[in-house]
Amino acid sequence: MSYTAPLKDMLFDIEHLASIGEIARLPGFEDAGLETAQAVLEECARFNQDVIAPLNIEGDRNPSSFKDGQVATTPGFKEAFAQYVSGGWQGLQHPADFGGQGLPKTIGAACGEMLNSANMSFALCPLLSDGAIEALLTAGSDELKAVYLEKLVSGQWTGTMNLTEPQAGSDLALVRSRAEPQPDGTYKVFGTKIFITYGEHDMAENIVHLVLARVTGAPEGVKGISLFVVPKFLVGKDGALGKRNDVHCVSIEHKMGIKASPTAVLQYGDGTAASIADSAGPGAVGYLVGQENRGLEYMFIMMNSARYAVGMQGIAIAERAYQHAVAYAKDRVQSRPVDGSMNASAPIIHHPDVKRMLMTMRAYTEGCRAMASVAAAAYDAAHHHPDAEARKQNQAFYEFMVPLVKGYSTEMSLEVTSLGVQVHGGMGFIEETGAAQYYRDAKILTIYEGTTAIQANDLVGRKTARDGGQTAKAIAAQIERTEVELAKSSSAAAAAVLKRLKAAREAFVEVVDFVAGQTKASPNAVFAGSVPYLMLAGNLVAGWQLARSLIIAEDLASHSVDVDFMQAKIATARFYAEHILAKVPGIRDSIVDGAESVTALALDAF
Amino acid sequence: MSYTAPLKDMLFDIEHLASIGEIARLPGFEDAGLETAQAVLEECARFNQDVIAPLNIEGDRNPSSFKDGQVATTPGFKEAFAQYVSGGWQGLQHPADFGGQGLPKTIGAACGEMLNSANMSFALCPLLSDGAIEALLTAGSDELKAVYLEKLVSGQWTGTMNLTEPQAGSDLALVRSRAEPQPDGTYKVFGTKIFITYGEHDMAENIVHLVLARVTGAPEGVKGISLFVVPKFLVGKDGALGKRNDVHCVSIEHKMGIKASPTAVLQYGDGTAASIADSAGPGAVGYLVGQENRGLEYMFIMMNSARYAVGMQGIAIAERAYQHAVAYAKDRVQSRPVDGSMNASAPIIHHPDVKRMLMTMRAYTEGCRAMASVAAAAYDAAHHHPDAEARKQNQAFYEFMVPLVKGYSTEMSLEVTSLGVQVHGGMGFIEETGAAQYYRDAKILTIYEGTTAIQANDLVGRKTARDGGQTAKAIAAQIERTEVELAKSSSAAAAAVLKRLKAAREAFVEVVDFVAGQTKASPNAVFAGSVPYLMLAGNLVAGWQLARSLIIAEDLASHSVDVDFMQAKIATARFYAEHILAKVPGIRDSIVDGAESVTALALDAF
Repeated sequence: MSYTAPLKDMLFDIEHLASIGEIARLPGFEDAGLETAQAVLEECARFNQDVIAPLNIEGDRNPSSFKDGQVATTPGFKEAFAQYVSGGWQGLQHPADFGGQGLPKTIGAACGEMLNSANMSFALCPLLSDGAIEALLTAGSDELKAVYLEKLVSGQWTGTMNLTEPQAGSDLALVRSRAEPQPDGTYKVFGTKIFITYGEHDMAENIVHLVLARVTGAPEGVKGISLFVVPKFLVGKDGALGKRNDVHCVSIEHKMGIKASPTAVLQYGDGTAASIADSAGPGAVGYLVGQENRGLEYMFIMMNSARYAVGMQGIAIAERAYQHAVAYAKDRVQSRPVDGSMNASAPIIHHPDVKRMLMTMRAYTEGCRAMASVAAAAYDAAHHHPDAEARKQNQAFYEFMVPLVKGYSTEMSLEVTSLGVQVHGGMGFIEETGAAQYYRDAKILTIYEGTTAIQANDLVGRKTARDGGQTAKAIAAQIERTEVELAKSSSAAAAAVLKRLKAAREAFVEVVDFVAGQTKASPNAVFAGSVPYLMLAGNLVAGWQLARSLIIAEDLASHSVDVDFMQAKIATARFYAEHILAKVPGIRDSIVDGAESVTALALDAF
Repeated sequence: MSYTAPLKDMLFDIEHLASIGEIARLPGFEDAGLETAQAVLEECARFNQDVIAPLNIEGDRNPSSFKDGQVATTPGFKEAFAQYVSGGWQGLQHPADFGGQGLPKTIGAACGEMLNSANMSFALCPLLSDGAIEALLTAGSDELKAVYLEKLVSGQWTGTMNLTEPQAGSDLALVRSRAEPQPDGTYKVFGTKIFITYGEHDMAENIVHLVLARVTGAPEGVKGISLFVVPKFLVGKDGALGKRNDVHCVSIEHKMGIKASPTAVLQYGDGTAASIADSAGPGAVGYLVGQENRGLEYMFIMMNSARYAVGMQGIAIAERAYQHAVAYAKDRVQSRPVDGSMNASAPIIHHPDVKRMLMTMRAYTEGCRAMASVAAAAYDAAHHHPDAEARKQNQAFYEFMVPLVKGYSTEMSLEVTSLGVQVHGGMGFIEETGAAQYYRDAKILTIYEGTTAIQANDLVGRKTARDGGQTAKAIAAQIERTEVELAKSSSAAAAAVLKRLKAAREAFVEVVDFVAGQTKASPNAVFAGSVPYLMLAGNLVAGWQLARSLIIAEDLASHSVDVDFMQAKIATARFYAEHILAKVPGIRDSIVDGAESVTALALDAF
């Protein structure tokens, strides 16, 4: 099944919702206007459609394999990654100082979507490198930057994030890996890390592990965790690769999906590496990033970048599943339409319920894409705006969006990929069809880089309760302004969207009051509704962006600009409002009235 | 992961909701009271827990395999099936005349749930035999009954349903398999059938295929389809097995789930069988069931039985996934509770969102079980009640329930098995954990035996529009009586349930009016909301049964009967009302106000 990048929709969002024109007025982004976006996206589409997408099903059939400490990736991956590197795609958003192109996230995010639609398992390797780059940029010493950044930005080397240990998943306070300071200023790292994506592979010369560990004598809990760079191969001052470091892949996981992406168990310091011959004993040589005991803070930099990117993965796989389902629904002939409009069996896309499924898939995908695009624009402004107050507001908005982009877009991807299978009927359950792979692949998205519950905790605690709901209310106020705009239109679609948007925004404000007001007094009641709150907020913000899209599309259509596309946008926005936004008041009821019943059952009764 | 049959919950439903005491007053069910139910369920639990459940994960790891026309089932399946047969489990609900035990469906359904919780792939073989038995009982000649029924009822032989062909899935009008009448009264059957569950296997001596085909010269469309018995091995008048019939398995499918259940492509009449040496040429020897051209009608008998059974599969796999998730949540230690109640990391079941997920799983499962139990009781009364009017009313109620039991219970099983993975975090995505298997297995349930959309068409057309909404309104009236009962309780739980039940029932009535009133005039608008209508109705009926459960549980608790269980039932009913029933008004809005946006998008725009 081929993939066609939804360039028109992406560029609509980038131009009209994310306002790339304004981004291009920010210092450092002078060349990043709409024309640049268009050129980059078109080139990116060609590359992903032609080179990366065909390897997706291959990765599922011939997953990464492990033997004698080595991981062999799916046939074709190594060559495709070489093309990814030579095309400069890894450096898209990274600073020119280190060889990157320094483009805004607003453009980079769309490219990330394409790569993930084409092949989510493949895309995970660059995704993790991005996180490692961000962490080093923010907290790495000049020396570390000099040694590692250029090669990570080029893609010659790749990066990983090493957080999880068997006893420490969501709860990083339980991390036990340890780091012993050495006289030369380096550390020896010991411990076992699990679930390390691309922790070992054959696509790059070196792998740069970013590892959480405790320095000997550090405090317990999250305040005693430091961050280290531990390269697979030691690197000389000249940048040349030296001996193998004492970190080894001991196995990879047998997973339900993203099978081409190797998920490694890494053993640090078991003493089997060549490097120990030169040293006083076993231990992986590690280099402290930033200061001791501030590792979690730095890791959050990587995580926030990765969380947004995982949200994009949700959008990406939803788009691919949608395209797959549409193609089947246009091709598969079965039964006459219920309205008697055709005298013979018709392609199933003519059946209302198939349309309902496809519209649901489409509306979720477009809504989340619009939300993510606007979030990316806020990120760009937060980092590049000359005005401090503007930077601060954009930062607050972006930070509020991260759990929504991650949590809501990935949860919706479960529903969308399930509908994708459903549209295929029995064929959907047969692996050769390809729809099942998206369903299996997507399920990791609500789990890794923080489960939906972890995103929801973040939304409740750091993003809502901490500022007393101020950021949330500011968003509600912006939505109200969109309602005023909607009210100016005389169309039935605008009226329908206004009705649902208003009800959803009011429900949101009630929930924000409940969350901001009760988190301290009744934490169980608030956290019982944390995920529903996240789903409500994500639903609303995506619906809001589609409402904005509708206003813009009505205006452009009235000026005869790309009328078919604009009418489709209007229809999609209305569908979203009537079938997805319409869920919001019910969720409000569950959160505000239903907290008690979440925690009422005695533990023994489960 | 072991399985423990939820005997208490099953017997609560059987005693208090399905009113087994009343069923035991029906002619033919005199011995089928509560004591019998208890004894049968306990024995069934032991068998399934000890013998069948341990083979579930094995079936996923070592699926059925195909070689040279033969299918080898998972190691252990053949022996387990022999025990299933020797225990008399296949005959549980079938007539004593043919060796069965003639127990009510109210009891049989609970046994079916256990078998499917234990091992859905395994359970499919008996499930299909049940369908074949029902079809032969209803439409088979005395001769066919004499030759086939006893061996099917004992389990010595198994049955299959052969509907689907590559071009004919949901649309049986497109069936092309043909049957040529022979001078001896038999037929020669030719054609290709796909997706035939247990179409070939090694667990029984013979396989009795029930096959849809067109007799030469029959009318086109569904009115020209006949039903045939085509045994794998021809059967002599003495019941002894003869030569191999000309039907062959040419491959089995590579599926996302239920991997142990072989899904066969069967070739009829390709001339490779030994039997053709004796005959005038190729063709599988078939025996007409009932009359020519009434095949679809008979097949619906099998399908209705199978649809209910597939609904039970949804409940069964949800139960298993729930048990798996609860065990993990009680065991896995991660993070401190948000309310500060514990000074150290706690089992994750202490976290409100984990409770929310487990309560969602539990409430859906118990709600659908209660609905299915009441539906089974109606089936029993429809077949055994001495009063014709009572039979008719119960039949109408049962027929209304079938699409809800099938459609709603299977759709909820997707959500429940997804939550089951989610509770496990990263471990859920690792196949060895077992949670992923339920997620993969469950996805077939919303597809086979009629997709959810096909169930919804049935609910809209035959079950609602045809009688002008009369049956639906009668159910609404019954729900109103439950509301009156709820209002008599002074508890907060009863008040909370009443609030949501009333709102949901009112929404249901509005939708029924819309469906009954508009199906002819605006079929596209009604069918655009057909699946949402099914989900609304299933949600309501399951919630209604939990509301009844709450009333009963409050009464029993006040008489000190099993207080812990009753309080758990009350908590679960309240959770269902506040978190699941609360969705209903939103669905009503989407159906009644949102039809237009489902079909608005131009076909080219997809």
